Amino acid sequence: MSNANLTLMFFLQAAAVLLACRAAGSLARRLRQPEAVGHMIAGIALGPSLLGASLPDVQSWLFPTGSRPLLHVVAQVGLVLYMFLVGVEFRLDLFRLKARAAGAIAAAGMIVPLLVGMGIAAWLHGTEPRQFGEGVSRLQAMVFLGAAMSITAFPMMARMIAERGLSTSAVGTLLLAAGAIDDVLAWCVLALLPALVGSGAAAGWWPAAFAFGGGAAFVAVVAVIRPLMKRLHPPAEPGALVLPSPALTAVLTMLALAAWCTDLVGVHSVFGAFVVGAAVPRGWLSEGLLRTLTPVVTALLLPFYFVSSGLSTRVTLIDSWWMWVVAAVIVVGACAGKLLACAAAARLSGEGGRESLAIGAMMNARGLMELMVLNIGL
Amino acid sequence: MSNANLTLMFFLQAAAVLLACRAAGSLARRLRQPEAVGHMIAGIALGPSLLGASLPDVQSWLFPTGSRPLLHVVAQVGLVLYMFLVGVEFRLDLFRLKARAAGAIAAAGMIVPLLVGMGIAAWLHGTEPRQFGEGVSRLQAMVFLGAAMSITAFPMMARMIAERGLSTSAVGTLLLAAGAIDDVLAWCVLALLPALVGSGAAAGWWPAAFAFGGGAAFVAVVAVIRPLMKRLHPPAEPGALVLPSPALTAVLTMLALAAWCTDLVGVHSVFGAFVVGAAVPRGWLSEGLLRTLTPVVTALLLPFYFVSSGLSTRVTLIDSWWMWVVAAVIVVGACAGKLLACAAAARLSGEGGRESLAIGAMMNARGLMELMVLNIGL
Repeated sequence: MSNANLTLMFFLQAAAVLLACRAAGSLARRLRQPEAVGHMIAGIALGPSLLGASLPDVQSWLFPTGSRPLLHVVAQVGLVLYMFLVGVEFRLDLFRLKARAAGAIAAAGMIVPLLVGMGIAAWLHGTEPRQFGEGVSRLQAMVFLGAAMSITAFPMMARMIAERGLSTSAVGTLLLAAGAIDDVLAWCVLALLPALVGSGAAAGWWPAAFAFGGGAAFVAVVAVIRPLMKRLHPPAEPGALVLPSPALTAVLTMLALAAWCTDLVGVHSVFGAFVVGAAVPRGWLSEGLLRTLTPVVTALLLPFYFVSSGLSTRVTLIDSWWMWVVAAVIVVGACAGKLLACAAAARLSGEGGRESLAIGAMMNARGLMELMVLNIGL
Repeated sequence: MSNANLTLMFFLQAAAVLLACRAAGSLARRLRQPEAVGHMIAGIALGPSLLGASLPDVQSWLFPTGSRPLLHVVAQVGLVLYMFLVGVEFRLDLFRLKARAAGAIAAAGMIVPLLVGMGIAAWLHGTEPRQFGEGVSRLQAMVFLGAAMSITAFPMMARMIAERGLSTSAVGTLLLAAGAIDDVLAWCVLALLPALVGSGAAAGWWPAAFAFGGGAAFVAVVAVIRPLMKRLHPPAEPGALVLPSPALTAVLTMLALAAWCTDLVGVHSVFGAFVVGAAVPRGWLSEGLLRTLTPVVTALLLPFYFVSSGLSTRVTLIDSWWMWVVAAVIVVGACAGKLLACAAAARLSGEGGRESLAIGAMMNARGLMELMVLNIGL
């Protein structure tokens, strides 16, 4: 596709994405479901499962293969900016009080689904090894499915917490902290895969060491840079509603570099963006950033993220009786494992009974969608 | 490039673009030049002319060919959003008082440089026809150079007017109106080119008819849709600073469709975005849109537009004595023609002497950059 053509189609795609998300979002709200779930369903509707199945010519004209990379990058930029804002809103003060509980919930929510996933993978690999592709060993299948099942859809959870207005509450802080820890741990486990593959140039423990070490070094660098952000010039009049443009540019540059670094070492830019956001000094800077970026990011960019996930989902891939059994086992195993483990950890950390159950449920925020995607990966 | 790699490099490119623009922008301000000129120079510095000439490996690593389409689209989206905001700020009330003057300035600023450009092209084509490429007739060369020289760099002019705080002044309104008219006329003249080429499937008068007719139809449709924007729900509390998200989504969807339509008929999305912006009802909606979008668009997206222009400029292409003569003739001819014609039209329309000269100078806002680009096109 020529540059001019790519631009032309992007404007049309943007209109389609915004319209579909608006329609599905209001429908979801009417059914008392999170708007983000509506956006994801809008993405599935625009993808091969609905639009592609009913009007294949329209679908391939509106979303030609050549435009996919562009949509992917826009979605990722939207995601990074959103997770940055989640970090900016993150209540570090509340987190300090609840750090142990967050660690316990994250560990339980990580280890139990990991073990359940490894168990399911061992069973599946025993009955029908070719489901995982040719030449995939039982151990590799176990690590892959275990890591995939232990991932919390951190962005999805953050969006649902924000929609319910709980971002700055104690429970919201606990959930966000546990989600962030889970997310980075799962990426580290996935980075272990090459070490377990044991062949080819990319093999060995390097990727995992890179992810663990790089992630830790990144947090250390952010801690060093943090005081520099306090030196940015505040607005000329105190209480001004407009963020000075040099401060905005400086923070966005830092964010872009952080996303690049964390992606490079393999712990995913979502984590880097959240950490930089959490490091932003509270006051005029954090409030100005939230006020300046939130409307554009949630109304314009985040729809691209949810739609982009849906676009690559092909629900019809689950087409045999056996696949439905496998999907059901994975879904039930993943949800039950994570819910019970997180709720138990929360209860043991001193949260109330209802709060614990809510925490268990929210850590399951990935919904069915992620598991569908996972199923396709298999 | 893989999607993951494209995303990774985009974060690094974003950091480089923001940093370079920040540095060049402060330098420009210190030299009392418009920041936008600084941004353009930052783009040239990151492109083949400076970074590419001194550190070619770094340049091709930071901006690989595969990432160019993405940067192009981001730049165009930034440009469309910016021109939309220029439209939103446009003072329709002042324009109504000055419509005749704007028309006169636009016509003079269009026709005189067109004739000068056609004259220069006729002379150049006579002395060295291969400068225009093989098989380009004298008439084609004349229309191309004439149209190119008559274009006002509307976005650049709008940015310079905004930087000087003149966007809502009488002179600013006059300039923006004249610039918009000029811009759309020049695109229509360029659409005449295929009719003059007279061969191949795309030949004939259709593109020009499409551009004229489509542009007119577009303005008519916007006039019809305009009352619908008045029906958007205002914020729950009057005077609230946050724009309701459904209203933001509705306007952005409309803007994306407008950019798509105008690009499709061939009058450039810059014009479509400006017209939709000018049609936004004044009041809570226009103020909310300006407050919500301006910081992100000017701090984050517009730098991509200026850098993207610079990235494709290769100053070193002007490498012979003869090329410098040609460049000098084009620059002097373009500037003198436009300045004198616009100033004369403004003076005859009843503007004061100083204002008229300023108007003539600002309509020249394209700067040397566009002419360099043009020179490469030859």
